[in-house]
Amino acid sequence: MTDQPQPGAWVNDAEYRQGAVDLLGILAYGALAAFDRLAEDARLAPTLTEKVHVASMAALQVAHFDRVRARLSDLDIDVMDAMVPFHAAFDTFHDYTKPKDWLEGLVWAYVGNGFASDFYREVAAFVDADTRALVYEVLADEAHTDFVIEKVRAAIEADHKVAGRLALWGRRLVGEALSQAQRVAADRDSLTSLLTGTVDRPGMDLAAISRMFSRLVETHTRRMAQLGLQA
Amino acid sequence: MTDQPQPGAWVNDAEYRQGAVDLLGILAYGALAAFDRLAEDARLAPTLTEKVHVASMAALQVAHFDRVRARLSDLDIDVMDAMVPFHAAFDTFHDYTKPKDWLEGLVWAYVGNGFASDFYREVAAFVDADTRALVYEVLADEAHTDFVIEKVRAAIEADHKVAGRLALWGRRLVGEALSQAQRVAADRDSLTSLLTGTVDRPGMDLAAISRMFSRLVETHTRRMAQLGLQA
Repeated sequence: MTDQPQPGAWVNDAEYRQGAVDLLGILAYGALAAFDRLAEDARLAPTLTEKVHVASMAALQVAHFDRVRARLSDLDIDVMDAMVPFHAAFDTFHDYTKPKDWLEGLVWAYVGNGFASDFYREVAAFVDADTRALVYEVLADEAHTDFVIEKVRAAIEADHKVAGRLALWGRRLVGEALSQAQRVAADRDSLTSLLTGTVDRPGMDLAAISRMFSRLVETHTRRMAQLGLQA
Repeated sequence: MTDQPQPGAWVNDAEYRQGAVDLLGILAYGALAAFDRLAEDARLAPTLTEKVHVASMAALQVAHFDRVRARLSDLDIDVMDAMVPFHAAFDTFHDYTKPKDWLEGLVWAYVGNGFASDFYREVAAFVDADTRALVYEVLADEAHTDFVIEKVRAAIEADHKVAGRLALWGRRLVGEALSQAQRVAADRDSLTSLLTGTVDRPGMDLAAISRMFSRLVETHTRRMAQLGLQA
């Protein structure tokens, strides 16, 4: 850590520090939950080649978890403790968004994970440089994007009715994700104040937060369009 | 590949080569099947810490698969093709050995995988040096052994009746594994002749094969004893 500390460096600000730890806890639990979901989707794959793709995506989530755990451990935080505040929100999200079939699983992996990643990146702008670098690195892994786009487009090509059903599903995923995000924001002052700032540390005002949500929705719309779906 | 070719070097012996490819195909499909099983077991874990352990074991299987795929690709063989002859045996084995609970899953991971690994190591003695090195390397990964031993021993400590049930389960796993191995041996001359040799290439006679099985059973017995179970 040779970086100059930033203004209001997080080690000197307990709430700021807790916000970063919260973000890492969310990433860790999110990775475990995604592992579970993807491993289940792998079982629905119509061919062994596709199963291998999704199993690799699942394994990647464990690698992400390991990276986040190591960073938390550098901060003397047990990853298990950091994840506790977010069990309920993730478990509820996953209970409400169980894919019914292979295609819904693919859209889940791309659109759901993509939206969450964008949100984590936005939050990461407000944490210390080391944590931010790790978050960006973990989220950069999008090796399987082309695979998902190709499969979903081919399915729509083969049966146009699929597009309507999957578009609805994509909207539902984002709706549920937003409602769980709000729940976390309401419960965790440390995370909220990371975004909104404190007396000593600048954050986003309401207009900035609303611009952030616009950005998230724009990227989501672009992602849906890549799949051939209307957001 | 700077190694001197061995006597009867496999590249000049189509059946020998096919035996090595078969071994790699078995390892690859075995890794995928184990991924599936372990990912399902992770869901049964009583605590999040234990879930993380088993999810990591599952992710490791995908890493193994990737290594074997890369080796096959060096030999201009598609991993998907190499796995085809072994789908039925593995799928049957897995259908017949679904753990009913978390503890059976742990014994499956340790005793079942351990027995299979020992067998693959025995077969690897008869393939070319590069393939052998890869097989040994992939199988050497036993980072989670202590975790399984500790959990099973603690469960037996807490309730002695568990020992009888798990001992029976361990015996069944090995019985099913042997019966599927026999099926593969009967179907795949290339694998069998790898062990038994050909006119130009020495292999094991019946006495040697019987000694090999004695070794497998001995290691299995030792593994069960480590768990506090009678083989």
